[in-house]
Amino acid sequence: MRNPLNKTVVEIEPSGIRKFFDIVSEMKDAISLGVGEPDFDTPWRVRDEAIYSLEQGRTFYTSNAGLKELKEEIANFLDRRYDLKYNPYEEMLITVGGSEAIDIALRAMLDPGDEVLIPQPSYVSYVPCAILANGTPVIIELKEENDFRLTAEELENAITDKTKVLVLPFPNNPTGAILERKDLEQIAKVVEKHDLFVLSDEIYSELTYLEKHVSIVNIPGMRERTVLINGFSKSHAMTGWRLGYACAPKEIIEQMLKIHQFAIMCAPTTSQYAAVTAIRDCDKEVADMREEYNARRRYLLHRFEEMGLKCFEPFGAFYMFPSIKEFNMTSDEFATRLLKSKKVAVVPGNAFGACGEGFLRISYAYSLSNLKKALDRIEEFVNELREEQHVS
Amino acid sequence: MRNPLNKTVVEIEPSGIRKFFDIVSEMKDAISLGVGEPDFDTPWRVRDEAIYSLEQGRTFYTSNAGLKELKEEIANFLDRRYDLKYNPYEEMLITVGGSEAIDIALRAMLDPGDEVLIPQPSYVSYVPCAILANGTPVIIELKEENDFRLTAEELENAITDKTKVLVLPFPNNPTGAILERKDLEQIAKVVEKHDLFVLSDEIYSELTYLEKHVSIVNIPGMRERTVLINGFSKSHAMTGWRLGYACAPKEIIEQMLKIHQFAIMCAPTTSQYAAVTAIRDCDKEVADMREEYNARRRYLLHRFEEMGLKCFEPFGAFYMFPSIKEFNMTSDEFATRLLKSKKVAVVPGNAFGACGEGFLRISYAYSLSNLKKALDRIEEFVNELREEQHVS
Repeated sequence: MRNPLNKTVVEIEPSGIRKFFDIVSEMKDAISLGVGEPDFDTPWRVRDEAIYSLEQGRTFYTSNAGLKELKEEIANFLDRRYDLKYNPYEEMLITVGGSEAIDIALRAMLDPGDEVLIPQPSYVSYVPCAILANGTPVIIELKEENDFRLTAEELENAITDKTKVLVLPFPNNPTGAILERKDLEQIAKVVEKHDLFVLSDEIYSELTYLEKHVSIVNIPGMRERTVLINGFSKSHAMTGWRLGYACAPKEIIEQMLKIHQFAIMCAPTTSQYAAVTAIRDCDKEVADMREEYNARRRYLLHRFEEMGLKCFEPFGAFYMFPSIKEFNMTSDEFATRLLKSKKVAVVPGNAFGACGEGFLRISYAYSLSNLKKALDRIEEFVNELREEQHVS
Repeated sequence: MRNPLNKTVVEIEPSGIRKFFDIVSEMKDAISLGVGEPDFDTPWRVRDEAIYSLEQGRTFYTSNAGLKELKEEIANFLDRRYDLKYNPYEEMLITVGGSEAIDIALRAMLDPGDEVLIPQPSYVSYVPCAILANGTPVIIELKEENDFRLTAEELENAITDKTKVLVLPFPNNPTGAILERKDLEQIAKVVEKHDLFVLSDEIYSELTYLEKHVSIVNIPGMRERTVLINGFSKSHAMTGWRLGYACAPKEIIEQMLKIHQFAIMCAPTTSQYAAVTAIRDCDKEVADMREEYNARRRYLLHRFEEMGLKCFEPFGAFYMFPSIKEFNMTSDEFATRLLKSKKVAVVPGNAFGACGEGFLRISYAYSLSNLKKALDRIEEFVNELREEQHVS
């Protein structure tokens, strides 16, 4: 029998994030600071709306692009929160989480060989989705000395005459880095100069701790070149509902909708009804969660400082990205030893790109009491390592 | 600004099914026999389980491949109903409806230029998904004289040295055709001889009215060459839940899982919990719906016979596919005139492939009272057309 498989797919590496969790799940007393998912249940108000819609028997397909009412409320939300104006009927598409939106945006935009700029460290899907869409991923290595922000110069240096799309993953997973308006203005100049398009993944936009999130779409000239991706997973603690959305100029949404229609049909119906409530009525619940995340963030910063672990201050998402370069071991080694000796799971930074080597992703989507316990163990571990180094 | 779009995607035609429904939705007193979706609400038992899981706060991601318990129950179901044995941990993947399974199976299997055999008339997604996966769709035109079954000879004639995958869409949408064991045995010989793989879309497997559904996987030698696709949408009236699954040899599932992990993450969590109940406890509900569909099917057959409209007896799904060739007009013309003059919406057969020209897809996923009303109107229309022809 011949080989049933596509060559490109076989060569893609599976995500390195989950590796540690199989061990954790079988280890007694282990604490994971690894998963990139809110620890909060979805707000009750949202679940209650889902229950109501199930009781009403709303179990049928919605239109391919999504419920009209949901799209209208998303348009209101984007306007209210970020001063973004989108036509919900022509410039918006409801997707299966942000994940599907990334996949179909790249499939709709890339011709074979088009280069896609992907700043790293960043979420694990961009590179494989670019490859699966016949594109060529080109990595931009973000630097700790810039607080892992993308600079106009780094962008300029990565552009060739094949570059078509820039992925802009801020607020960033795994570093927690954000881009401010001044950063975006410089990037926008380069994007416009080289006639690029932007895939702006703003799934963590509600989780910023410096000032309100600014989208690249807010920068003049960028709206017509940008596919904005967002969703409910992180902001509204709705990961399992698989609900996201894409906003873009009509002609791009039309093509994304075609792929979505054939490959997915529509986003889950119950999730769509529930999301109407989430995005219309839950600003307070979102603010409460943000405040709780911020308290944890400050606690971790304080603890890292106390134990002398170098970490820039992240202003977005729910991750810290401390450096472990002083210990002369790889991130993988550090994470493995930490898990084995102290039963704390974190993700090695290089799971998010080679330039994440020497760092750890530590999620603070965990209760303060769990964080405290975990940080005590990390501190012990770090002290033991320093002693070892001192001895040798 | 340059063109943001991929050339291939732009050339794909959007589905022709929905065209008529925009008109219907704005027409008073119109009856649609057009939509390919059960008219039943999801069984209460299933919705109740979903409600329970929401109350319990199960709103998080599941593992990428899907809930262990769900996969185990699907394995039980496939064994109990179809005598199929799959390892739920290695040979199964929970997807966003059958739709996603089709898309990622083709993406996992096709190299650029590989030919995919697609019997038509058939569901509208196969051709675009094959194109989007860099494959070359090759159409096999099914024939009314064979009751729209695929024959070994038709298959043999379509094979070239580039052929890699055969899509097997039975029970069939839109014709209602099925394949019996004797048909499958002949097809299997050709598949084996030419070392092909099969994508068997069995989403209507619970809706057959002759004898129990037989899968091509039941034919010796086929299990190792087949990706079996099924789901909950049609059998359990769960379209809006977006839940399906793929079963295949481990090495194919592994690659599909990689695409699924990056492009989708996991199927919706609430739907997965609800589906455990659906597939474990709802054989009776499914049987009741099947019986109701069968009563409607027999009613339609009877009415078509009465009005002298030629239609082969379909033994699967919930569609009839009558011929309108006697009226010397296109399917589109017929459907448009029927909608305008009698306010009944049906789908022109050519929406499912050029060889569907001269036929209509009539769904009987509608109550008997609605079917009666609609068939009265169709009968009037047919009689008027015949009178016209007689006069001219």
